[in-house]
Amino acid sequence: MTVPTADLDQVLTNVDEHLEESISRLETFLKIPSISTDPAFKADCRTAAQWLVDQLSDLGFDASLRDTPGHPMVVAHYIVNHDTIDDAGAQNDDGNLIPHVLFYGHYDVQPTDPIEEWDTPPFEPTRKTGEDGVDRIFARGAADDKGQLMTFIEAVRAMINASFVHSLNMTLLFEGEEESGSPSLDAFLTQNTAELSHDVALVCDTGMWDSQTPAITTRLRGMAHEEIVITGPSIDLHSGLYGGAAMNPIRVLTKILGEMHDETGRVIIDGFYDGVEELPAETAAQWKALEFSEKQFLGDVGLGLAAGEKNYSLLEQLWSRPTVDVNGIIGGYTGDGSKTVIPSKASAKLSFRLVGEQNPAHVLDGFRKFVMARLPQDCSVEFLTEGGASPALEVVEGNPSLRKAAIALKDEFGREPVMMGCGGSIPIVGTLKDVLGMDSILVGFGLADDAIHSPNEKYDINSFHKGIRSWVRIIASLDS
Amino acid sequence: MTVPTADLDQVLTNVDEHLEESISRLETFLKIPSISTDPAFKADCRTAAQWLVDQLSDLGFDASLRDTPGHPMVVAHYIVNHDTIDDAGAQNDDGNLIPHVLFYGHYDVQPTDPIEEWDTPPFEPTRKTGEDGVDRIFARGAADDKGQLMTFIEAVRAMINASFVHSLNMTLLFEGEEESGSPSLDAFLTQNTAELSHDVALVCDTGMWDSQTPAITTRLRGMAHEEIVITGPSIDLHSGLYGGAAMNPIRVLTKILGEMHDETGRVIIDGFYDGVEELPAETAAQWKALEFSEKQFLGDVGLGLAAGEKNYSLLEQLWSRPTVDVNGIIGGYTGDGSKTVIPSKASAKLSFRLVGEQNPAHVLDGFRKFVMARLPQDCSVEFLTEGGASPALEVVEGNPSLRKAAIALKDEFGREPVMMGCGGSIPIVGTLKDVLGMDSILVGFGLADDAIHSPNEKYDINSFHKGIRSWVRIIASLDS
Repeated sequence: MTVPTADLDQVLTNVDEHLEESISRLETFLKIPSISTDPAFKADCRTAAQWLVDQLSDLGFDASLRDTPGHPMVVAHYIVNHDTIDDAGAQNDDGNLIPHVLFYGHYDVQPTDPIEEWDTPPFEPTRKTGEDGVDRIFARGAADDKGQLMTFIEAVRAMINASFVHSLNMTLLFEGEEESGSPSLDAFLTQNTAELSHDVALVCDTGMWDSQTPAITTRLRGMAHEEIVITGPSIDLHSGLYGGAAMNPIRVLTKILGEMHDETGRVIIDGFYDGVEELPAETAAQWKALEFSEKQFLGDVGLGLAAGEKNYSLLEQLWSRPTVDVNGIIGGYTGDGSKTVIPSKASAKLSFRLVGEQNPAHVLDGFRKFVMARLPQDCSVEFLTEGGASPALEVVEGNPSLRKAAIALKDEFGREPVMMGCGGSIPIVGTLKDVLGMDSILVGFGLADDAIHSPNEKYDINSFHKGIRSWVRIIASLDS
Repeated sequence: MTVPTADLDQVLTNVDEHLEESISRLETFLKIPSISTDPAFKADCRTAAQWLVDQLSDLGFDASLRDTPGHPMVVAHYIVNHDTIDDAGAQNDDGNLIPHVLFYGHYDVQPTDPIEEWDTPPFEPTRKTGEDGVDRIFARGAADDKGQLMTFIEAVRAMINASFVHSLNMTLLFEGEEESGSPSLDAFLTQNTAELSHDVALVCDTGMWDSQTPAITTRLRGMAHEEIVITGPSIDLHSGLYGGAAMNPIRVLTKILGEMHDETGRVIIDGFYDGVEELPAETAAQWKALEFSEKQFLGDVGLGLAAGEKNYSLLEQLWSRPTVDVNGIIGGYTGDGSKTVIPSKASAKLSFRLVGEQNPAHVLDGFRKFVMARLPQDCSVEFLTEGGASPALEVVEGNPSLRKAAIALKDEFGREPVMMGCGGSIPIVGTLKDVLGMDSILVGFGLADDAIHSPNEKYDINSFHKGIRSWVRIIASLDS
């Protein structure tokens, strides 16, 4: 059915009028110290999950706490017009298929160390107005992810309170182990595929471009890991007695790793760029128009020059170009002073960030060939590949749900949302794709200065407020 | 005076006839557990020093135990014809200047760990005849250096017992801290320069070429140390959020270190080979004639190809060519598993082995310029040079004492001694040169399988016997 604009305005007004109550509920939620990685907070995690079940049950969801080997999941359904929660084929009044979204968030939070650096206790949510006139709420989890997931719940609450008639089926999934590696997630999704697999996922765990500009994260780089160990002599040798004559594995390792990039920053591993496509012109133009300050981004961490491929902007280097980084290297004597040793072994850990259609196995294969081609006859190499390689994920910009969400965000903020990339991976997106076959629309309202994972985490009241209003608009727009 | 051959034969016969007594004295000496590095053996070190004083006093030396802040030194003089021990200008019967040598050895020994791997107790000297028919004496210090220094004392004893008339002034210096870094040596030499500085030093702490072939070590490579720390970003970064755009100091470090050698194994640092001369043709020919098995030398440590400059033999790479080795490298995450970090810093420890007239400061300067020329604008580097740089030491083959010792060794063994190099440094040689201005003639009778510093250290009875006889011949030959 077509939603009259008047109705939507009523919902948004309801959001505005009841904002303080929404904040109050968020504060209650933030007081629960649901630190998933520390066993001392196991009961608190369950309390947080149960709190969500209660909230959603009150709103009319079919909500339940679901045990896992770790912390429980919360699953809640809001089904508008069909007989079972498996709603394939359910139709709305106009005879169209009723869309069904899966919303994902996580109720667990990071530990609070270093606790002495917090200005206010992490589990006593504190409202403060900064010198810039901006209202913020400080607490562990304020932004990551309790504040963000509550934007969705409060949006649904406002729609229900305003008796807004929509025909969108919703399943909410809240995880309690996101900050501790999601050990139970895959199995849970696999065991509940029919219940959880729907048209599209909405994930609220990302950020805006800036405090005035919304964003949808459409590109996530993939990842592959590799650890290599080069062995030269069978035992550590004295560099006086053998130096010059015995091949030093550090010499071999540094030579190989030092040759991976050419002078322009391009990775010269054969086949590395297979599956990497140039950025669509529209996206390139949008990123260029952002007038992103490379200088400030790098200056904040003591750098001044983008280190990647010379012909690409810094945002492209981060979001749409693949990389290889050595994350760790070790060999020989690394204590105080000196020791005249030629070590038997030297090793390095590498990670590859992948984009487009790059195949992780193909990239690792290319790297191994690159190493083997440069390995002296006298040395051997072991490749200790870890699991967890994953290709890049991209929501194509023509995706209908993405287009609707983009329009809704533009309506709320008065400007086009930025189609952002993310240099790192967001594991849930890959899991939803792999296990449930679902694309994810990543909309979030966090800001770069939210200090997630750090002391004095905060969420702007504006992020919370506009976030709720944005979800009202998005839910309404997906309802057709 | 010219020594009649008959007299020398009598001395050598005396050596042979009293060999068992000589071995018995060595065994007594070996029973004293003079481990210098372990404070529990402090009194034993003094006992060993006093034992030497007593032995030398009995032989007519002016011998004394000399206290230092650490273990005592033993100094003993045997002055044939002058008024004071400072014998500059003393003349023999023919009116020639009487030569004066300084003999150096050390009475301290290495610790015995791992004690469980010894077949017999380390301080209960044990004679054994191997399956190869070779007699050996097993004990800690048997070769390093008690057995070796006793070859000299027993040679002097035989000459005195046989009333061999010679006119060579001798000062003996025995150190008790060689195995613990010689902390008292420099100051002691400086404080006693007039007493200890003479024509040439004889150092007995090295080896033969093989059990049938004597050797004089004439080339010792020098050394310079450098530690470099490359800093990229001011803090550790997440490789997802920054990877590609932020310069990784491990990338910089590996690229720089990986470029130090060209494809032929030559070091491409500007000026690195300044002061390096080609080997004299005679020495090159001698080394070539040794038919040294590169295959076995490298095969013993799991290698098969000499890693140094392609146009030089392995012995040349070890003894007469300079090198640079990375002795340690570290950066980023080096624990189990992986961590997606771009570290702020990466560092490496390097050592340079120097030959000929290479100047350590010049080499380090060249290395620094090499690094700076390759350092990205965004990175900084610290050079943490340690002290202890020392140039190479070489006794020119025309040195008269060296020629005399070589002839004496040839007379004893029936074959030319090998003029060996040593890839590492022997600190006493540099100290004697720097503090007392003396060249050292390094003659020793150890063998590669003596297991010095290891369990089951041994000294061949043949090494001991031929060593005593060799010193008799050398002392007699220097007496003119």
